[in-house]
Amino acid sequence: MSEIYKGNKEYFPGIGKIKFEGRGSDNPLAFKFYDENKVIAGKTMKEHLRFAVAYWHTFCADGSDPFGNGTIVHPWKNAEEKADAAFEFITKVGAPYYCFHDIDASPDADSVTEYEANYKKTTELLLERQKATGVKLLWNTANAFSHPRYMNGASTNPDFRILARAAAQIKASLDANVILGGENYVFWGGREGYTSLLNTNMKKELEHMAQFLTLARDYGRKIGFKGTFLIEPKPMEPSKHQYDVDSATVIGFLKEHGLEKDFKLNIEANHATLAGHSFDHELRVAADAGLLGSVDANIGDPQNGWDTDQFPTNVYDALKAMMVIMDNGGLGSGGLNFDAKVRRNSTDLEDLFHAHIGGMDTFALALEVTDKINQDGKLAAMLDKRYESFNTGKGLEFEQGKMTLEDLRDFAAADAPVPQISGKQEMIENMLNRYMFG
Amino acid sequence: MSEIYKGNKEYFPGIGKIKFEGRGSDNPLAFKFYDENKVIAGKTMKEHLRFAVAYWHTFCADGSDPFGNGTIVHPWKNAEEKADAAFEFITKVGAPYYCFHDIDASPDADSVTEYEANYKKTTELLLERQKATGVKLLWNTANAFSHPRYMNGASTNPDFRILARAAAQIKASLDANVILGGENYVFWGGREGYTSLLNTNMKKELEHMAQFLTLARDYGRKIGFKGTFLIEPKPMEPSKHQYDVDSATVIGFLKEHGLEKDFKLNIEANHATLAGHSFDHELRVAADAGLLGSVDANIGDPQNGWDTDQFPTNVYDALKAMMVIMDNGGLGSGGLNFDAKVRRNSTDLEDLFHAHIGGMDTFALALEVTDKINQDGKLAAMLDKRYESFNTGKGLEFEQGKMTLEDLRDFAAADAPVPQISGKQEMIENMLNRYMFG
Amino acid sequence: MSEIYKGNKEYFPGIGKIKFEGRGSDNPLAFKFYDENKVIAGKTMKEHLRFAVAYWHTFCADGSDPFGNGTIVHPWKNAEEKADAAFEFITKVGAPYYCFHDIDASPDADSVTEYEANYKKTTELLLERQKATGVKLLWNTANAFSHPRYMNGASTNPDFRILARAAAQIKASLDANVILGGENYVFWGGREGYTSLLNTNMKKELEHMAQFLTLARDYGRKIGFKGTFLIEPKPMEPSKHQYDVDSATVIGFLKEHGLEKDFKLNIEANHATLAGHSFDHELRVAADAGLLGSVDANIGDPQNGWDTDQFPTNVYDALKAMMVIMDNGGLGSGGLNFDAKVRRNSTDLEDLFHAHIGGMDTFALALEVTDKINQDGKLAAMLDKRYESFNTGKGLEFEQGKMTLEDLRDFAAADAPVPQISGKQEMIENMLNRYMFG
Amino acid sequence: MSEIYKGNKEYFPGIGKIKFEGRGSDNPLAFKFYDENKVIAGKTMKEHLRFAVAYWHTFCADGSDPFGNGTIVHPWKNAEEKADAAFEFITKVGAPYYCFHDIDASPDADSVTEYEANYKKTTELLLERQKATGVKLLWNTANAFSHPRYMNGASTNPDFRILARAAAQIKASLDANVILGGENYVFWGGREGYTSLLNTNMKKELEHMAQFLTLARDYGRKIGFKGTFLIEPKPMEPSKHQYDVDSATVIGFLKEHGLEKDFKLNIEANHATLAGHSFDHELRVAADAGLLGSVDANIGDPQNGWDTDQFPTNVYDALKAMMVIMDNGGLGSGGLNFDAKVRRNSTDLEDLFHAHIGGMDTFALALEVTDKINQDGKLAAMLDKRYESFNTGKGLEFEQGKMTLEDLRDFAAADAPVPQISGKQEMIENMLNRYMFG
Ligand SMILES: [Co+2]
Ligand SMILES: [Co+2]
Ligand SMILES: [Co+2]
Ligand SMILES: [Co+2]
Ligand SMILES: [Co+2]
Ligand SMILES: [Co+2]
Ligand SMILES: [Co+2]
Ligand SMILES: [Co+2]
Repeated sequence: MSEIYKGNKEYFPGIGKIKFEGRGSDNPLAFKFYDENKVIAGKTMKEHLRFAVAYWHTFCADGSDPFGNGTIVHPWKNAEEKADAAFEFITKVGAPYYCFHDIDASPDADSVTEYEANYKKTTELLLERQKATGVKLLWNTANAFSHPRYMNGASTNPDFRILARAAAQIKASLDANVILGGENYVFWGGREGYTSLLNTNMKKELEHMAQFLTLARDYGRKIGFKGTFLIEPKPMEPSKHQYDVDSATVIGFLKEHGLEKDFKLNIEANHATLAGHSFDHELRVAADAGLLGSVDANIGDPQNGWDTDQFPTNVYDALKAMMVIMDNGGLGSGGLNFDAKVRRNSTDLEDLFHAHIGGMDTFALALEVTDKINQDGKLAAMLDKRYESFNTGKGLEFEQGKMTLEDLRDFAAADAPVPQISGKQEMIENMLNRYMFG
Repeated sequence: MSEIYKGNKEYFPGIGKIKFEGRGSDNPLAFKFYDENKVIAGKTMKEHLRFAVAYWHTFCADGSDPFGNGTIVHPWKNAEEKADAAFEFITKVGAPYYCFHDIDASPDADSVTEYEANYKKTTELLLERQKATGVKLLWNTANAFSHPRYMNGASTNPDFRILARAAAQIKASLDANVILGGENYVFWGGREGYTSLLNTNMKKELEHMAQFLTLARDYGRKIGFKGTFLIEPKPMEPSKHQYDVDSATVIGFLKEHGLEKDFKLNIEANHATLAGHSFDHELRVAADAGLLGSVDANIGDPQNGWDTDQFPTNVYDALKAMMVIMDNGGLGSGGLNFDAKVRRNSTDLEDLFHAHIGGMDTFALALEVTDKINQDGKLAAMLDKRYESFNTGKGLEFEQGKMTLEDLRDFAAADAPVPQISGKQEMIENMLNRYMFG
Repeated sequence: MSEIYKGNKEYFPGIGKIKFEGRGSDNPLAFKFYDENKVIAGKTMKEHLRFAVAYWHTFCADGSDPFGNGTIVHPWKNAEEKADAAFEFITKVGAPYYCFHDIDASPDADSVTEYEANYKKTTELLLERQKATGVKLLWNTANAFSHPRYMNGASTNPDFRILARAAAQIKASLDANVILGGENYVFWGGREGYTSLLNTNMKKELEHMAQFLTLARDYGRKIGFKGTFLIEPKPMEPSKHQYDVDSATVIGFLKEHGLEKDFKLNIEANHATLAGHSFDHELRVAADAGLLGSVDANIGDPQNGWDTDQFPTNVYDALKAMMVIMDNGGLGSGGLNFDAKVRRNSTDLEDLFHAHIGGMDTFALALEVTDKINQDGKLAAMLDKRYESFNTGKGLEFEQGKMTLEDLRDFAAADAPVPQISGKQEMIENMLNRYMFG
Repeated sequence: MSEIYKGNKEYFPGIGKIKFEGRGSDNPLAFKFYDENKVIAGKTMKEHLRFAVAYWHTFCADGSDPFGNGTIVHPWKNAEEKADAAFEFITKVGAPYYCFHDIDASPDADSVTEYEANYKKTTELLLERQKATGVKLLWNTANAFSHPRYMNGASTNPDFRILARAAAQIKASLDANVILGGENYVFWGGREGYTSLLNTNMKKELEHMAQFLTLARDYGRKIGFKGTFLIEPKPMEPSKHQYDVDSATVIGFLKEHGLEKDFKLNIEANHATLAGHSFDHELRVAADAGLLGSVDANIGDPQNGWDTDQFPTNVYDALKAMMVIMDNGGLGSGGLNFDAKVRRNSTDLEDLFHAHIGGMDTFALALEVTDKINQDGKLAAMLDKRYESFNTGKGLEFEQGKMTLEDLRDFAAADAPVPQISGKQEMIENMLNRYMFG
């Protein structure tokens, strides 16, 4: 395997393999914190963080927004050139994984068979490059939201014919996944929701969605997909209301429909904030249910709360996320996928490197600080101590189901004085700053 | 039973029984739309709407806010006077139900036995007045969030002793409920959540909460409570994050812990908007799960989204809510409780009447418009037609579980042209205006 | 002048002139409230409301959004066909005005002279159709935000060359305006703001903007533009922060730079809510400064607060707006422009009619209710009474500048009892419902 | 002057003077970054940061919120004990300044003369302690929002008698300020706004407010106040809409009424975010107008956007603020006042120390990083370069007012190619992380 992949043309000339130069470096095209082979808590940074590059943002997005046309012109023109550029970029930046939607990488077509034929060819292109580089597929997915046919939904479309059309894309994407050795398969339902409740039968649509996911699961298992199916929660946009609102909603849905053995969650930071939660909250809810699958690492702008999909550069957010992830024993078959795009006016090809370097350095630093916190053990000890009343005596009996409501009342009726115990939030927040900056 | 209840003193002198005067009336102290005996779709307005007055806001709230002391001085001073004022008001405004927290009506005490003794006395006071007036208890609940002891939670407190103390309040409240013939019992967990995830073991806390609710359920059933237990979702405030976020979250929780046979949801309009949803969405989610229990009817200020608990005067919101409620076959043992307060500067006692009259008229009008829509049948027909592709052929087979993902793909691969079908949202919104104003 | 305009082809076949049929009608393609010749308070509805159709949404928008391609395919292909369709639609729906951006109506070009030549031709096309129909231009504007060249701003671009390029568009648009007899000229600065404050010299950019507007004003006056220049506030999107945040910000800016004699404000409902205000607040601030120029009538979705540009169907919002507008003595040279688009899945050409009919009916109804309120006079009298303490005595002296702080203190030191005066908000809100539904 | 002040009783026993121990320290009751005598850019940290302790939060707030009673019981009972506790705390934590509202420190009274007499006594108490410790008054203010009499506003009250009553408080507070040598005087108008626009004459109220501030200014100058008058913007809460929305709104108001020579702005971080802006944006707007007066240093919870008044521990926010402040040449007579409170469940007296230490360390670190950035000079150079096209040639002529719109058009019509220039936002954000963590 070569260090850097190059196709017929070099798409990022003048930029070589991004190297680790350490904290002192002021080279913007070097890592200051991400040292892929550095061992932390028994694994390399690379193994912990499992970074993935997102095909759609990095190789397809052109900077367009609802008020303006694209600003970024890519020098790659067809599927093969795009794949060349992608693997050149991925190997230069040193990410071990990538992710893609069917039509990011492969030309779309109205005809199902033409679409499938295109996809097969693209799968070969990608497989070749995977073999040449060692880069692996973290997950792929099907885009069943951009095409006008999905304007009323895909698996939740009121028209069965559209639902079936979406199934063709999912089937083809699972076929490709198995060939490419994908470690996960993702569902994000951009149009699975509603614009107006007045024209929507939500119950029926949700039942259709469950049935659809069941069929996809069955097919995937049948053809040998051994990875994890992932649902990516998002509360709104493009639909005004989307069915996969947040971790709790999706977990409830999965269990209601018997899907929780095969499906986990892909948590996106910006979707967490869009739902009125914090990134670490959503991760924690998923982890507590044993359903934390993978992560879309990005951030929104705190000023407006929208899904701006910016690269993650906030070390506080990354740290709180890594604390949950490490506590979860890592991400398993999942990874940290940069579902993030450069700003519309970041039009130098080089900016793609700055963006990924910043994201990778941010999470590497967060990993180091998490390890420092874990080594120190003070925070964990404080947390344990807070709940110690349930470790013995009546508290333990309560946990063991041995007390009735009347027993609890009788215990309380003794009116024993109970000391007021501070939550120590300010002290803990200071400790975080000390771990980060001390 | 007397039409109007008066205790030793009349607390709202100069205001008699509020009468229905119809649309033409400009008497601010008369109903224009709420005609309690008017029959709509086979039931009286009174039976449909099941209005309840909230003890805490209407007889306790003093207009204080985080930046100012109370502005409203109540002429009632002790539990008995407050009960007198309450039943005078309730009978004058003509609501068939009321709701209360333990310490709204009954003096709090640090000692459990003293608290219980107070509560018993208050229960007698209330029972007398119920009998005298025919006013019934829609639900009661325990306030396990205001006292400093609950600053870290009640059933989710890290300290078992506080959990037990909360149990004493719930037990006493269930005892009172059975004596008063309450039709429901509500849990709203103002401190069941967290201020910082860094000092919180969310998994443990949620397990404690489930165990606690199980014990409460068991005790209630044991002492003969035959009504519905209700959870009231709210996403945040006073806790930064509250565990009972929204309908979907609570439904998932109830099912996870086997509580869905005994518990339903009490949906508050303003909590729905605080969670980033609409009122009718939250009602619909609950109804679709067969778990729509009762409603806290209020509104927030759309400008800031906060839980301002204003009286419901927006007919659009009330209409969309009533459409779900009528479709659900009504509220069963639940009702429409005005969990709403007059503004801080609405300091005339009379303002309490304006507020309730406005809320009752708004829902009465919404009920009339809903009936008009249902009689007309056009909206329902449009909705049915939208999903007709699932009524026959392959669509029906899909619903019946007779198709695989490959079958769906094969159906789509025929590439039969699929017409684009408009959602007609603008036309439907115009129809609503026509039903309201036409 | 013909009632309905038709070009070489009829673009909305099967739909004729939309007629007023009154409240009882259930014809979705008829007005229920907008009776253009009905006289209210001395003017016809048409004269009061001065409705305008927006070229960009109604004849250009294709339903695309950040997650999907266009869903709406227009049968008009070039500038002339588009103009034909536009005037057919405008005359069928019966709006007296229209509005457009340069490149909505006229083909864009990289070369300034080519752009100008296109624009001249288009101006002729439009002028012909104006003459044929009597439809008038409420305002036009230049789109200096969609083209990639404006990604860093137009008049606030850090690169002078881009600023100059924008000037070419504004000049051409003013030239066109004068030819077409436009009654106003609008500036909305989609990229006049920043994405990151870290790379922005805000002070310099604002000075450039002021200088630029001054030059535009001078040029406009020089070539005989006698109408009103309008700034349209919006706080964010597409820029993360936009300089023209809200009414108060823009008024401060105009006065700072001596532009308040020539410029007024174009208030968009959805921009008001995006700024955390209400529509009527923004209108009121502008009106109080004598700077209420025109209105972009639409609404956002209250659930997410975004700039969704939906057609206005909420009668409460329209009523509160009309109360300010009537109080302002009308809109002068301004009007009510539907800066609103049908939903992405409203793909029938007919839906454009439903949308406009709904918007026009909503404001017509609001106008009627406003007149009813004004006739009744109760609300105005309550408002006057609230401030009566400033009409005589010390209150009047204070207003006249005859009291010092010490005088005020001495007046207060008499400790005369001051009665508590309720704001009566609930009663007033009930009154609004009565005026609307009674 | 003594290092630590102690009154008759020590209120924070066991805690001595907080010392600087440096980054390596894990003593939670020591500074890690704030070394008051360390010289940075020619001034000590103490001189740069000018920290102030807020009387209301630190010595008065009891942890109550809209859903719960106070959790914190202070051992100080009267004005003198409170002053003792305050100066003990301030000297132990080592802040050079403090701030207070009249009734934080001095007992309120309904009678004006009694209120004044109390205030005089309190002023003596404070003056003694200032002299004993060298602690100075950054600013004081009058609380004209908590008392029920202000429920409809103070200077904007529809009732002149309430306006006059507020004047008595402002006069007394200015008197106290001059005695105590206050460096600034603040106005925050908690009730200067509206709850409903329907019962409000906004224009009249704003004119009253302007007149009121003018009288206060005149009186202050008359009695020898030489400091800065400050307005503190906040967009909402407790009023639904507050008149002093944000920096831009207040600046427009000050200039409209000729107050900008005497008044500047006191920017609160959490009010900036509540207004939909960022902290540094609001600082920058004020600084660009030459009106940056002082700072209330706190943060809100980004998850809900409310005014939670948390202590500032986010180094990113503090850094961006310090970059503006240093660029402004410091804060002049202003300072960094911790308008922040410990969480409701932070009930140990010690927690007040953690909170202030965290806030002071955060800004000290931000100051150090700002200095590093300024020393390096790269960011400033990038910013200058971005606007270089205005330094010469036509760009300069434009800035000098030598070009017309036609000149600009002609310049553009040459169609010279203009290169696309990236905003480099991702690179700049990475640079910030490097300066912070490198
Ligand atoms: Co994602
Ligand atoms: Co996203
Ligand atoms: Co509420
Ligand atoms: Co409630
Ligand atoms: Co607009
Ligand atoms: Co808009
Ligand atoms: Co403040
Ligand atoms: Co604040």
